[in-house]
Amino acid sequence: MARIYNFSAGPAILPEAVLQEAQANLVDYKGAGMSLMEMSHRGKEYDAVHTEAIANLKRLMGLDDDFSILFQTGGASMQFALVPMNLLGPGQTADYINAGAWGKKAIKEAKLIGNVNIAADTSKEKPSRMPKDSELKLTPGASYLHLTTNETIEGTQVKETPRVEAPLVADMSSDILSRPRDFAKYGLIYAGAQKNMGPAGVTLVAIRKDLLDRSSETIPAIMRYKTHAAEGSLYNTPPTFPIYIVMLVTRWIDAQGGLAAIAKANAEKAALLYAAIDNSGGFYRGTAAKEDRSDMNVTYRLPSEELEEKFIKEAASHALKGLKGHRSVGGVRASIYNAFPRAGVETLVSFMRDFQAKNG
Amino acid sequence: MARIYNFSAGPAILPEAVLQEAQANLVDYKGAGMSLMEMSHRGKEYDAVHTEAIANLKRLMGLDDDFSILFQTGGASMQFALVPMNLLGPGQTADYINAGAWGKKAIKEAKLIGNVNIAADTSKEKPSRMPKDSELKLTPGASYLHLTTNETIEGTQVKETPRVEAPLVADMSSDILSRPRDFAKYGLIYAGAQKNMGPAGVTLVAIRKDLLDRSSETIPAIMRYKTHAAEGSLYNTPPTFPIYIVMLVTRWIDAQGGLAAIAKANAEKAALLYAAIDNSGGFYRGTAAKEDRSDMNVTYRLPSEELEEKFIKEAASHALKGLKGHRSVGGVRASIYNAFPRAGVETLVSFMRDFQAKNG
Repeated sequence: MARIYNFSAGPAILPEAVLQEAQANLVDYKGAGMSLMEMSHRGKEYDAVHTEAIANLKRLMGLDDDFSILFQTGGASMQFALVPMNLLGPGQTADYINAGAWGKKAIKEAKLIGNVNIAADTSKEKPSRMPKDSELKLTPGASYLHLTTNETIEGTQVKETPRVEAPLVADMSSDILSRPRDFAKYGLIYAGAQKNMGPAGVTLVAIRKDLLDRSSETIPAIMRYKTHAAEGSLYNTPPTFPIYIVMLVTRWIDAQGGLAAIAKANAEKAALLYAAIDNSGGFYRGTAAKEDRSDMNVTYRLPSEELEEKFIKEAASHALKGLKGHRSVGGVRASIYNAFPRAGVETLVSFMRDFQAKNG
Repeated sequence: MARIYNFSAGPAILPEAVLQEAQANLVDYKGAGMSLMEMSHRGKEYDAVHTEAIANLKRLMGLDDDFSILFQTGGASMQFALVPMNLLGPGQTADYINAGAWGKKAIKEAKLIGNVNIAADTSKEKPSRMPKDSELKLTPGASYLHLTTNETIEGTQVKETPRVEAPLVADMSSDILSRPRDFAKYGLIYAGAQKNMGPAGVTLVAIRKDLLDRSSETIPAIMRYKTHAAEGSLYNTPPTFPIYIVMLVTRWIDAQGGLAAIAKANAEKAALLYAAIDNSGGFYRGTAAKEDRSDMNVTYRLPSEELEEKFIKEAASHALKGLKGHRSVGGVRASIYNAFPRAGVETLVSFMRDFQAKNG
């Protein structure tokens, strides 16, 4: 098989070793005579998967027993609603940072549920950037401050955790497990799996246990974090196969040396690509402010939309797939998540040099 | 590989041919150089899967363009909340049938959201049974009548669609696609995939389009059926791999001859097993009223709990797995969904005869 270089923004590339192990076990899970997909979520084989996934995630994120790890569904989009439904009481206000498309979606949904204060809005600025702590207009006694740690469309990433009094709630869908963070300083972290952690169909929620009591018993039981924490994410049938893949990905991260080693590799891959952009004499132009550049989604433009279209098309014929920028902003976007190999970045850099030589 | 007979109530057995095709394509999806799990949900390969799954489901269920097929997550448990959130307006009343554990859960969640009238309650009766139309105490002008077409724990199944004025809303999680039904007479049908249709992680919703306008714009966008119908279930990232398996299962149903052929095979399997119970001279006792016996979940008792425990243990050593009744009711439960082979039922019947000869 000729594996292509998959720059898709999500669902995204998975480690080949994970796919191979899943394939080997797909029909007959470890000699059980059935697939993991066919097994009860309350049986011993699946229980081992579920328990290991939770333990590995807690260890990788450095979270202790003050936190519950939940497996939910519906991606970040469902959390945009569940977070304020659970954590934002009547008469209270939640602060939100708007630094891009995903932050904006979270805000739109939260406004249907409660009072929202926009603590900072950099979403229309070019180059794209994340606001600094000093710019935040915070509400005294806010229920929480919501941020998006990586904006996939704008290509920006929060490098340092904001220092604020309110509990931090973060959408980490596109950079979870890509670098060490002081995860324990957050009150609630959520992430759709389909970028750095697994396939579409499972959402990670890590919640500080003292926040569980905020869930009102007037909201549906299925929508309360407390319900799922009390049942170890087995209140209803969890998406067992996607969780299995997440578990295999956590093992793969361990095999790479953990988050520190992953972060180093990610930073090197991103540096290679940003250097190619910065050293192109202006032919390639990065769209994010340098200090906020994402290690996950590298966004850039070419001198014209025609050249961008040609670039994306020719790249695809060199097995460099998924480079088209989001339809709302255009340009080029190279998503280079954890599982994306350095060799693929080197191939892209080489292609960029050739393309410029022919079209510059 | 020695494939065992998997009587699990859900997640449950899948057609072996489906598992084998998924396995063959898991790492390299049809020569694309990547897994389907790694592909954008807006790319052409996944689009073909998504579109075919919807088309096949509509055809199998005989639904025309008056209906939208949605792929959601969270299983029936999430629908217990979303149905009244979307369809039950303030000041209105919804009628619910309580004929078992699943109906009861739907009612509990709906009561948090709006006015609920229990149109019939047979949930405590023994033998278990479904109420007749003539027993229903309906609310004039009710928003809808909710029923559970198959109660997995009680082993009962609705054979004829109730004739009522209000739109019918049905949880068909455990018998969807197991027999022809007049699906077009329902206003909304929902079903977690993990019993008859695919793996855990995707939920089918078929909704009559005129009901979409009931969704209030005050509920979160992600929770409105209207949002998902407008975007063809691509408003957020759908659970792509589980939907792929559902698509393969619909092809497998077609290959069996469609729902009529599936229903015939299911009825024959169930008849074999119920005959073994009825002809055991009382050693095995069915727990459901004969006219309401489920073709999907065959529930029965033995003379003592000790014998039940022994039966389940010895059956497992004959590769007959997952026969333990739900923890809330005990006894034996043989779940024989679409994909469960007739040979497995014959093996169970033979084992039952031997077990009775030794222990009767």
